[in-house]
Amino acid sequence: MKHRIALAGCGNVGTALLELLHEKKDELKAKYSFEYDVVLISDIIKGTVANKSGLDLEAVLNELHQHNSFAALKQDSGSLGELMKRYGATVLAECTPTNLKTGEPGLSHIREALSSGISVTTTNKGPLAVAFDELKAAAEQSGAKFLYEGVVMSGTPLIDMIRNGMAGCSVSGVEGILNGTTNFMLTKMGSGATYDEALKEAQALGYAEADPTGDVEGWDAAGKVVILTKILFGKDIAVTEVDRTGITQVTPQQVSSAAQKGNVIKLIAGVDLDETGLHPYVKPREIAASHPLAQVGGAVNAVTVKTDNLGDVTLIGPGAGRRETGQALLSDIIRMGN
Amino acid sequence: MKHRIALAGCGNVGTALLELLHEKKDELKAKYSFEYDVVLISDIIKGTVANKSGLDLEAVLNELHQHNSFAALKQDSGSLGELMKRYGATVLAECTPTNLKTGEPGLSHIREALSSGISVTTTNKGPLAVAFDELKAAAEQSGAKFLYEGVVMSGTPLIDMIRNGMAGCSVSGVEGILNGTTNFMLTKMGSGATYDEALKEAQALGYAEADPTGDVEGWDAAGKVVILTKILFGKDIAVTEVDRTGITQVTPQQVSSAAQKGNVIKLIAGVDLDETGLHPYVKPREIAASHPLAQVGGAVNAVTVKTDNLGDVTLIGPGAGRRETGQALLSDIIRMGN
Repeated sequence: MKHRIALAGCGNVGTALLELLHEKKDELKAKYSFEYDVVLISDIIKGTVANKSGLDLEAVLNELHQHNSFAALKQDSGSLGELMKRYGATVLAECTPTNLKTGEPGLSHIREALSSGISVTTTNKGPLAVAFDELKAAAEQSGAKFLYEGVVMSGTPLIDMIRNGMAGCSVSGVEGILNGTTNFMLTKMGSGATYDEALKEAQALGYAEADPTGDVEGWDAAGKVVILTKILFGKDIAVTEVDRTGITQVTPQQVSSAAQKGNVIKLIAGVDLDETGLHPYVKPREIAASHPLAQVGGAVNAVTVKTDNLGDVTLIGPGAGRRETGQALLSDIIRMGN
Repeated sequence: MKHRIALAGCGNVGTALLELLHEKKDELKAKYSFEYDVVLISDIIKGTVANKSGLDLEAVLNELHQHNSFAALKQDSGSLGELMKRYGATVLAECTPTNLKTGEPGLSHIREALSSGISVTTTNKGPLAVAFDELKAAAEQSGAKFLYEGVVMSGTPLIDMIRNGMAGCSVSGVEGILNGTTNFMLTKMGSGATYDEALKEAQALGYAEADPTGDVEGWDAAGKVVILTKILFGKDIAVTEVDRTGITQVTPQQVSSAAQKGNVIKLIAGVDLDETGLHPYVKPREIAASHPLAQVGGAVNAVTVKTDNLGDVTLIGPGAGRRETGQALLSDIIRMGN
């Protein structure tokens, strides 16, 4: 079966998916018998292009790279639901901007697709945060696939590893480094910078926002813990239920005193499930240099999965990046099978 | 569909699989809709037990744990091929002892199963070393599944991660720590032991054989490189083609001089594929303490996979152990689907 792909949201990640599909067309066919047409691309700013026989990706990518718009191409219009039907989409890649409060517009897109039997891959945390159970049930009812590898660790395949690679294992918890900005800052502080210096450098490099609260107070990592808790344990928790401490109180003295003991301070995020319940947390922790998470630098993420049959298994890989996140969408579509 | 499992070889790993299947019967059904009967267990020493309606695993495990034999149970006899047909096996879990030269008896078992449309999971390197292409072709022809997660890193899902988790990535190489014995010895030497002291301790703990050549000269790691080369790149190389240096020439001086620079010496095994061809190797290498492989201790294995879309992804987990290797068989069977 040839996948008929619709793309909702053509920003950095959506464009990266198109690039991968285009570059790798022959390789994907040879290796996975994976064949596709991209029949629809809809972006609220760039416009909507579609073709029942498959878009010319080279032409589309040229427009994106040169003008960041579809203005020069023949356009169509309509709601995403109508357009997916009109062009016979079988898979929706959803990567519109994230809204953690409403889940929109991704939530409506995904709901529409799954209820029509169109499989979905998404990198958008919003719909998962707002309506995970509803969407999962909709997929089960229609027989559509619903995958979301890219919502944590971009394309580093944590979710697939837990679901499929470790099939048969029971997971009792995860812990890891899930926020690149604070990890960068703590690494800088380990080299002698003050908190303010580390923050300024992170802001200058574009890692931290002008208002860095989301990162440095641990909210971003806590949001990822909420999603992991849902995916791993099927449990709903509010982000405010995460036992959360950021890095704003970490002093250069603490960092250097840890270093003197051969240790490092890392912002560790995780969740454990035991007989007393769920224990979700984000906390600066002093760990030994020999700990598998101790050497994880900057933009790299790492998660240790605690299991019954395998003990601890640690996965280290990119936690962000446009190509890396596009890869998450691509691998999800390949895993949907033919 | 209920899997009808035949087990060839009921040593440590085969017994661990039976334990997992028995312990997790309800969990596997709830989580994966995975249902099974074990219809046949054949072991050259312990005997052969079989039941068309499924063996009573509790009774079988009691005999194994108490008498390490099936002598007290009703037995059947015949070739494995005949028995698999007689009892209607749909899956063969092959874990007879490894013979890297002939592949037997596993090779005949797997050949027989695949040609009859019976899917196979194995932890036995022998048949893969001797007849990988033939077995893969036999599986393709009959439509049977042929999986072998446990041949490297026991149940740590390296092969599934590369095949499925990273689907869409192209892999240009792998490097890692694939031999626990030498890793243990180098760690001891890092704490001040001489080579001979480290070897004696490894032997006392049962990590190293009386004749330690296989480990300390890098043959074991080289054998794993040969298998990874075949699995990743589909290329046949002889173990003698691996650029191989063991740890026998590593001196305490080298180890401590590395430590003074903040580095460690590790026996790194890997293979790269570039435009000039394959580069398989096993070599002691001085790496920085911040290298993802630097902190990997003792019986833990670690492999870094070099990819185009994700850069480097490192997987760290158990490289041996009966339950861990039984888990490899279990996850393979679950992944075969219904």
